[in-house]
Amino acid sequence: MTLAVRYLSARTLDTAPASSAPPGPGEVELAPAYVGICGTDLHIFHGDMDARVSAPAVLGHEMSGRVVRVGPGVLDWQAGDAVTVMPLRWDGTCPACRSGHQHICQHLDFIGIDSPGAMQQRWTVPAATLIRLPASLPLERAALVEPTAVAVHDVGRAGVREGEHVVVVGGGPVGVLIALVARAVGADVRVVELSAHRRLLAQELGLAVWDPAAEDLPALVRDWTGEAGADVAFEVSGAAAGVDSAVEVLGVRGRLCLVAIHPRPREVNLHRFFWRELTLVGARLYERRDFEKAVTLVADGTIPADRLISKVVPLTQAPAAFEALEGGGDVMKILLDCTTDTDETQGAAV
Amino acid sequence: MTLAVRYLSARTLDTAPASSAPPGPGEVELAPAYVGICGTDLHIFHGDMDARVSAPAVLGHEMSGRVVRVGPGVLDWQAGDAVTVMPLRWDGTCPACRSGHQHICQHLDFIGIDSPGAMQQRWTVPAATLIRLPASLPLERAALVEPTAVAVHDVGRAGVREGEHVVVVGGGPVGVLIALVARAVGADVRVVELSAHRRLLAQELGLAVWDPAAEDLPALVRDWTGEAGADVAFEVSGAAAGVDSAVEVLGVRGRLCLVAIHPRPREVNLHRFFWRELTLVGARLYERRDFEKAVTLVADGTIPADRLISKVVPLTQAPAAFEALEGGGDVMKILLDCTTDTDETQGAAV
Repeated sequence: MTLAVRYLSARTLDTAPASSAPPGPGEVELAPAYVGICGTDLHIFHGDMDARVSAPAVLGHEMSGRVVRVGPGVLDWQAGDAVTVMPLRWDGTCPACRSGHQHICQHLDFIGIDSPGAMQQRWTVPAATLIRLPASLPLERAALVEPTAVAVHDVGRAGVREGEHVVVVGGGPVGVLIALVARAVGADVRVVELSAHRRLLAQELGLAVWDPAAEDLPALVRDWTGEAGADVAFEVSGAAAGVDSAVEVLGVRGRLCLVAIHPRPREVNLHRFFWRELTLVGARLYERRDFEKAVTLVADGTIPADRLISKVVPLTQAPAAFEALEGGGDVMKILLDCTTDTDETQGAAV
Repeated sequence: MTLAVRYLSARTLDTAPASSAPPGPGEVELAPAYVGICGTDLHIFHGDMDARVSAPAVLGHEMSGRVVRVGPGVLDWQAGDAVTVMPLRWDGTCPACRSGHQHICQHLDFIGIDSPGAMQQRWTVPAATLIRLPASLPLERAALVEPTAVAVHDVGRAGVREGEHVVVVGGGPVGVLIALVARAVGADVRVVELSAHRRLLAQELGLAVWDPAAEDLPALVRDWTGEAGADVAFEVSGAAAGVDSAVEVLGVRGRLCLVAIHPRPREVNLHRFFWRELTLVGARLYERRDFEKAVTLVADGTIPADRLISKVVPLTQAPAAFEALEGGGDVMKILLDCTTDTDETQGAAV
């Protein structure tokens, strides 16, 4: 018998035994090793996504692990292979898919929200979702590949180029990853973050930070860019003030990449979009090439995954970990370790 | 002695004698023939731009005319040449200019707003602003080149391609010109307009129109695009509801080109930008290549300028024409005829 963490209702998780059936045609059964807790998982935990999530629901979509067994017709994978999962299942027939944008399929199944996720000791997914991990990459670090793929996608959508001035508004895990990926492209990056703790963490990663509450952001940008304004801003804060800041820092023809989720409409200074011919680009999830690039960046140390992982806790302590994360800015990334607590999986999964 | 129309204060224009000095080095003196009244001219007339406009001010930036005399060092032009003017003077040194975007220079002088415009019988401008007109193009039609250049720029900023589904929200003069330019690119275009009169005018030009008050816009778009949504929307209405409509009609990766001026921040459904990976592109004014393309489109009849010109009135009747335009939707474009009322210019300018 294996274990699964289940979302039952707002602010209630449990850990329950789960059974697993043999993988069907085209499917693969995995033993998740490490699973990160994401902002979206927290939204679900808060009960904000009850309209979309069918409880009891197994969460989790930032993972690493190993193949346990494969279903009929699966030829490219075998037991023991180290993998992560691009947790998207698209219908292939909607207008988005037909135009080549499967990752924003109009009937997308996001695995871990719309269907069972990785916070369990056995997890069956379509073989098509697997991404191979290099043998040299520790599985703990590999749990950072999924959020890194988000950052790679965002930086790509914004078209960041070497030498550009880039402002990242919001220094949580995704903001820091965007900053690191943009820096790897050769951009000059500033992270704008209200939380002193998060600013400190970003600084420890070598990132330059600004405190928008204590500093005059437009003046800083003018000095930094010789009056030109930034080339690119990322809105990762989800706050109304974050949108304002991201618009305000941009120079002529600047690009604002919208990463954060704003459930309700926001006031936007459209006049500035007109006046400076700005561009706003929405960015959601990732494509396979983003995932593959993310594997490279985590494996080669461009993303210092070890330093982004604040804590690793056993799967059974997931409820406490979610509650701890509610506090907010004191941690970057918490991983659940799925390999402990049951003898049978320990050997297979690490 | 020649005449000039002058803005004195909110809702007050007069016609006054004006004197003209010989053009300086690099300058050219023109005899304007026809000058269109633009939405911006109406804003100034309403007193909405008093902070920017120094009264008494000569308005007008949509014009056609002929060269009267040239200043020292001007070699490419001679008396009698038919021209229009790209009414922009940039500093050439600001970050926008240095990055090649002179038309949105951070210290732009828009001639006709920030410095004296074309609603007069003699007008001196830098030779660099002149655009040559083909001899075959009647000057009356050529007064439509400037607003057509706006539309060419907008369609270019949105990247409209053949076969795309394009929605133009707002069927005034600029909206109709955008629709015509997009149609010329090969797009399938719909114009969304509340005014029955403007819808009728657009229909007479062969454009398909929708009434957003009477019809279910999202349902129309779904039927029209086979559930995909539009590829491009232009927001030309300046209204909050227009922004909502433009966002709502777009499909996955759709592009919203922001043309209208929204002086105050607007609520924008940012979640949809994220969810469908939409792009918002601000578009302002034009570049020289847009002006040159506009000359071609007006000259070859792609833009049926004659049918867009509702009325031509003598320069002395400008005050009455401005008041008539306040009514709104009943006219497309009114031209002021600068060639009448004084004997000396009549021969030179037509």
